[in-house]
Amino acid sequence: DLLEEKFEDEIADETLAECAVGEKTVFMVSDGTGWTADYLVHAALGQFEHCLVGRGCSVNTHLFSEIKEINQLMKIVQQASEEEAALLYTLADPTMAEAAKKACQMFGVTHVDILGPITDALATQLGIVPSGLPRGAPGRKTFLTKEYLKRIEAMEFTIKQDDGALPRNLHLADLVLVGVSRTSKTPLSTYMAQKGYKVANVPLVLGIEPPRELFDIDQDRIYGLTMMDPNFLRSIRIARYKNLGLAVDSSSSYSDMDHIRNELEYSNKLFIRNPRWPVVEVTGKAIEETAAVILRLYHERMNKFVIPHISKRY
Amino acid sequence: DLLEEKFEDEIADETLAECAVGEKTVFMVSDGTGWTADYLVHAALGQFEHCLVGRGCSVNTHLFSEIKEINQLMKIVQQASEEEAALLYTLADPTMAEAAKKACQMFGVTHVDILGPITDALATQLGIVPSGLPRGAPGRKTFLTKEYLKRIEAMEFTIKQDDGALPRNLHLADLVLVGVSRTSKTPLSTYMAQKGYKVANVPLVLGIEPPRELFDIDQDRIYGLTMMDPNFLRSIRIARYKNLGLAVDSSSSYSDMDHIRNELEYSNKLFIRNPRWPVVEVTGKAIEETAAVILRLYHERMNKFVIPHISKRY
Ligand SMILES: Nc1ncnc2c1ncn2[C@@H]1O[C@H](COP(=O)(O)O)[C@@H](O)[C@H]1O
Ligand SMILES: Nc1ncnc2c1ncn2[C@@H]1O[C@H](COP(=O)(O)O)[C@@H](O)[C@H]1O
Ligand SMILES: [Mg+2]
Ligand SMILES: [Mg+2]
Repeated sequence: DLLEEKFEDEIADETLAECAVGEKTVFMVSDGTGWTADYLVHAALGQFEHCLVGRGCSVNTHLFSEIKEINQLMKIVQQASEEEAALLYTLADPTMAEAAKKACQMFGVTHVDILGPITDALATQLGIVPSGLPRGAPGRKTFLTKEYLKRIEAMEFTIKQDDGALPRNLHLADLVLVGVSRTSKTPLSTYMAQKGYKVANVPLVLGIEPPRELFDIDQDRIYGLTMMDPNFLRSIRIARYKNLGLAVDSSSSYSDMDHIRNELEYSNKLFIRNPRWPVVEVTGKAIEETAAVILRLYHERMNKFVIPHISKRY
Repeated sequence: DLLEEKFEDEIADETLAECAVGEKTVFMVSDGTGWTADYLVHAALGQFEHCLVGRGCSVNTHLFSEIKEINQLMKIVQQASEEEAALLYTLADPTMAEAAKKACQMFGVTHVDILGPITDALATQLGIVPSGLPRGAPGRKTFLTKEYLKRIEAMEFTIKQDDGALPRNLHLADLVLVGVSRTSKTPLSTYMAQKGYKVANVPLVLGIEPPRELFDIDQDRIYGLTMMDPNFLRSIRIARYKNLGLAVDSSSSYSDMDHIRNELEYSNKLFIRNPRWPVVEVTGKAIEETAAVILRLYHERMNKFVIPHISKRY
């Protein structure tokens, strides 16, 4: 596999020695969904990327969600001890968090309380005592807030507006993404929709005019996606082909270099003609990274901060 | 607003006194996207939900992403100090993290290092030195891994399979969600797609047979969504109407109680006839909560663990 090989080459031999520590295990425990711990562990494992699968160290993670009984918790700590796993937890009830800590100390399990320090800092900052109630506990306010409904709306809207569908709705979008095939319009759209933004995307296809509605709506909501490096676009398209189990047909214009160059040139010319559209380079960025760039720009346009950032109100 | 009023009633007067602390500010700083800090702060603020907007305390959060220069960092700490904000940070470079800590101590800013303790624990557990390189730093392995491509595929697949589209592709889905309108099939599908699962959803409509493909595919991949409480379904539908700016037409069968009862009865009968489909109750659950339940079941069916959980390999 060409892409994989390229990565391998970047890894020096010394690194491999440093990393030869075999299989390791990480347990995550939450009284809620576990997604917070999962997200954080995923980010933190980025710090060990030079060593993970195929590079001398593999990490198996196990996510235990909705753990609300002390008995279940104790069983998990014991299992962590047997498997010599580290244990990271988010437990809102201080009694549960304390029990996790004590048990881990007793069994000699490496552990981190993920939620506690944040809750403590916020309690200090806000001057309010935390409820200690986990997500979904009885007595907690239900989640059907306006913000939640807005998120749901955004997801429904975005799925209907994929790939240039229903141009008459473009004016309802918070953000409109424009770019040639494989500039990650669809995954970016659904990613940002999760965060509550209504996103539409419009594909740029050589020889086909974009819908006129695109030029009628508020131009400050439109973002161009581009790739400086046509080789990168090509390798994504080929990787995508392979992943779909398709043979890479070198005669196909989809992965043909000249065709790709022409497409990118066409889209870049359109972006130059529409200077209000910020052009975002997607080469080498994961979708969450591109989303961060776009949403920072979006919020800046709305607010004019000294240092661009994203604000919310709770 | 009916729903809002209901929440307000649940808040006792004493609580309001406890919460009368006014406007507060929380800063989040990341050398990456900031989504990890954002997610964690969102979860932690759940511990203060009894006090937030309209209840005596509002929290404004400000998310600063891609902060990689010490100068920018210092400006943000200073601003946090001026606004009496708490500051939470994820900074992979130990020099940056140390600088954040020192500056916060100097300026008297309440602060938490979110990433450091997790990275330290993992370093202990794995016996490997963390790279100290932030997401997107040069020299880091690019992200175009198989797992990443799989996630992108999942999002593309899921958006195409919404609302019963292309039944001939149902056999390609990891999960198929089945339920009547407003049981959150669409947002659930896109949410799980983000996590790398190919999800299709098939609506159940009174008087219309589901596609026969649904009964031909692997029945272990199908999940029924239901709501025990027809009133809840109705209030969601009405809330959704209002949110769309539509008048609630009491004669519309969509929000008519008898119609809703008939629909739910029809879907429950279908679920009884298909006992291999787990039936998931969505009443009172946010989509991430329902997703946690479904994915735990899904992984359990694949693996048969003592305590059901979700495993990954890095
Ligand atoms: N809305 C909420 N209210 C109270 N606690 C929450 C809320 N959301 C998340 N949490 C808590 O934050 C931690 C992480 O949540 P989760 O991502 O669901 O595992 C868990 O301890 C949850 O109980
Ligand atoms: N793949 C990765 N490699 C290295 N560091 C990462 C990776 N993903 C996230 N991080 C770090 O984890 C923290 C949280 O990331 P983010 O959610 O992008 O703000 C930041 O300090 C990032 O630099
Ligand atoms: Mg697309
Ligand atoms: Mg739907």
